[in-house]
Amino acid sequence: MNDLKQAPVGVFDSGVGGLTVAREIMRQLPDERIVYFGDTARVPYGSKSKENILKYSRQIVKFLKSKGVKAIVVACNTASALALDEIKDEIDIPIIGVVKPGARTAVRSTKNKRIGVIATDATIKSELYTEFIHELDSDITVVGQACPLFVPLVEEGMLHDEVTDEMAKRYLAGLKTENIDTLILGCTHYPLLRSTVGRIMGDKVTLINPAYETAMRLKELLEDKDLKFDGKLNMDENEKYEFFVSDAGGKFRTFANSILPFDIDTITQVEIEEYIV
Amino acid sequence: MNDLKQAPVGVFDSGVGGLTVAREIMRQLPDERIVYFGDTARVPYGSKSKENILKYSRQIVKFLKSKGVKAIVVACNTASALALDEIKDEIDIPIIGVVKPGARTAVRSTKNKRIGVIATDATIKSELYTEFIHELDSDITVVGQACPLFVPLVEEGMLHDEVTDEMAKRYLAGLKTENIDTLILGCTHYPLLRSTVGRIMGDKVTLINPAYETAMRLKELLEDKDLKFDGKLNMDENEKYEFFVSDAGGKFRTFANSILPFDIDTITQVEIEEYIV
Repeated sequence: MNDLKQAPVGVFDSGVGGLTVAREIMRQLPDERIVYFGDTARVPYGSKSKENILKYSRQIVKFLKSKGVKAIVVACNTASALALDEIKDEIDIPIIGVVKPGARTAVRSTKNKRIGVIATDATIKSELYTEFIHELDSDITVVGQACPLFVPLVEEGMLHDEVTDEMAKRYLAGLKTENIDTLILGCTHYPLLRSTVGRIMGDKVTLINPAYETAMRLKELLEDKDLKFDGKLNMDENEKYEFFVSDAGGKFRTFANSILPFDIDTITQVEIEEYIV
Repeated sequence: MNDLKQAPVGVFDSGVGGLTVAREIMRQLPDERIVYFGDTARVPYGSKSKENILKYSRQIVKFLKSKGVKAIVVACNTASALALDEIKDEIDIPIIGVVKPGARTAVRSTKNKRIGVIATDATIKSELYTEFIHELDSDITVVGQACPLFVPLVEEGMLHDEVTDEMAKRYLAGLKTENIDTLILGCTHYPLLRSTVGRIMGDKVTLINPAYETAMRLKELLEDKDLKFDGKLNMDENEKYEFFVSDAGGKFRTFANSILPFDIDTITQVEIEEYIV
């Protein structure tokens, strides 16, 4: 058996949001180990420059490689949009982001060729969803909408709250007049607002959760490269899944325990700036 | 004339919030030059650990000293609360924060010895306002309330908005039952919500803006140390005031121009992590 098959998958995000992607990987690939890194010292990425996002992503890739991962999932839309292309050429293990799988599924889903994207400022401004969608079908119209308060609202646990409803109504008002039939939840926090967004957009709009599509894509990729673990792990969750952060303060544990189907025992702080690139 | 008198004052914050303090210094000390540093790459500080806040503050102090400042104002409540005491012992120029001046004025203001503090999670948890207030008068009751959504709401420009009103009502509901007569706006963004907070708290509660008090304290300090510039500067605002950030992305310029009484010409990006401490 290929030893590398037993290696974990690395997953990283600017903070807690990527846990929605890790959760999908746990569901769809229950026998894969995961090393998760949340860049809680430098969260949020959404308002930062491409130059810094690229530097941060390189540092995290270096850290994950030091943990012996066999593949990396960039579970952050901003980093997928701004850093993935460069990093892909710099490393010798497979790496995928969340943007392409989300874009591909949206293209398959739309009937009227009108797709909406909601995301952070940086992701919307990067227009990368639009770019990927147009690579697949240049006839599709893509309408982007930044929802900057969604991340703080989710991180405050205000998933079902009239304030969140009000902000969602404002952010989505423009999209509702655009006759889209498909809407990409283009930030890893947004699947946690799926019910609110779905209610406002109505039944005729299909919501695309890139976390789900990314886990599917990871499975294909591991199979293609003969890297998928084909044994059975005799480990509990806290052995199978390791969690690292760049700042131990804040609410990582609370938030993680509210998202994941088990309680995390250990969260290890890493001096990420020491991973010089 | 003492050459050092002509040196600028360094002012730093995790981002744009400290501009409310810089603005007060510009008003009260119109002939002092200012070098402002906003740590936009690592904002917000409010959810980060003491260890990281201390490291970041040391790096910024090193940067400001490289610009030849004669004194430093820590225009960030979190850094004032978590890093100022250590840093004060490490440097050879005067340094003040925003917490002590705010606490001192609140103690002078209260008649019924009941003071409220609203701030970020980290500032409230540090209990430093409580500590400073109790050093001055241990009979005073201090009631703290974290308002985590205020910073993103202010940064989205939602200063006069029903969503901000609703969040303010929720955050302040507990304080309203505490019979406080004085409320410290313990985060540099909060003076921009002064009218909302004032309306909810009512006329009988005096709002304390530490930015104002800090500029007063800076003036005293410069006089005491014979560092106050006593000439007249023949410079326009964009010569007198220099602005540096750790990340040029985001909304620093828009926000700064909405707060300051002039438009900033140049904002320079600094690789702050290269200031190794």
